[in-house]
Amino acid sequence: MNQNNPHTMHPLLRHINRFTDMSNDDFEEILQAFKTLKVKKKEHLMLANTLCDQHFFVIHGCLNMYFIDTCGAKQTVQLAIENWWMTDYLALGKGQKTEFFIQSVEPATVLSIDHSSQEQLLLKFPKMEKYFRKMLQIAYGASLMRIKYQFGLSKEEIYLHFTRNFPDFEQRVPQYLIASYLGLTPEYVSEIRRKQLS
Amino acid sequence: MNQNNPHTMHPLLRHINRFTDMSNDDFEEILQAFKTLKVKKKEHLMLANTLCDQHFFVIHGCLNMYFIDTCGAKQTVQLAIENWWMTDYLALGKGQKTEFFIQSVEPATVLSIDHSSQEQLLLKFPKMEKYFRKMLQIAYGASLMRIKYQFGLSKEEIYLHFTRNFPDFEQRVPQYLIASYLGLTPEYVSEIRRKQLS
Repeated sequence: MNQNNPHTMHPLLRHINRFTDMSNDDFEEILQAFKTLKVKKKEHLMLANTLCDQHFFVIHGCLNMYFIDTCGAKQTVQLAIENWWMTDYLALGKGQKTEFFIQSVEPATVLSIDHSSQEQLLLKFPKMEKYFRKMLQIAYGASLMRIKYQFGLSKEEIYLHFTRNFPDFEQRVPQYLIASYLGLTPEYVSEIRRKQLS
Repeated sequence: MNQNNPHTMHPLLRHINRFTDMSNDDFEEILQAFKTLKVKKKEHLMLANTLCDQHFFVIHGCLNMYFIDTCGAKQTVQLAIENWWMTDYLALGKGQKTEFFIQSVEPATVLSIDHSSQEQLLLKFPKMEKYFRKMLQIAYGASLMRIKYQFGLSKEEIYLHFTRNFPDFEQRVPQYLIASYLGLTPEYVSEIRRKQLS
């Protein structure tokens, strides 16, 4: 792969270079700390009540982070498509068991790095600290904005805002997962969509 | 102030040293990049529709980050007490106007650093990248957990979980702000508290 051409550059290097500058040689070494996972549709990458030790980066596909609510239903807390990172950050940081599942929505290619390898990587390549800091700053900032929409918009507005701002997700992710992510019932989302189409 | 004694150490240095190791000499220089603000009760540190250029660290007091909803009511999205950082991270990163207000709940002492000074600080003291990365990892991880509670618990459980896990907030923050932060009405929170006391 020609790492100097942004079109053929490795997706992780391209993403890193949006926030910092990383040489091809350093990136080749960085990449060795990751495992490349070919994940089947519906395959789990993380299970609740197990140690959270992995940090995932989506090369291709879509991941769903969810928990099982008291009624036994799956509730999505986060979705990740290309160039998104995903894990239970609290459990990863504390070396604890997670309360979440991570499941692939469709066949996917995912990079995975365990916590200890990531810590070593950060010591060797301090630029990666900046990369993760900036990525987390956006993720946390977006979560504050998400709370704003959850609290400030009507159910219909929540759905319309999401589809307007994240058209990639609307096309890629099954409707019942988008509904779950937005805290809506699938029936309600179907109703809004029918209204939009009519 | 004796920076070697954890009891008299500057609160920011103490917090930095929870995540990385910083010498007293380096910290003295770091501190010079911050302004110390003595903030009155109800004073605003950030206004919606203005450029978001500051990152705040609470030395003493409590900050409320909120927006005005379509009914004209204040809706709290985040609260910050001692050792918490607060800003609109998306707007700060993009150099854009914010949609949020930050207001002091009580008389407070707050450190403030502008975006450009923070970027310079991070170049000069790369350990601060690690500090902010770890702080943001916890903040983002906690926000995923918050969504879990919002979606997975009943209204009463949301309130009881919050007061059990954040007793400092319950004692310090007015009840109507905790209600707003949890997406509950003040009347509902009063009802739960009455039930608990009876």
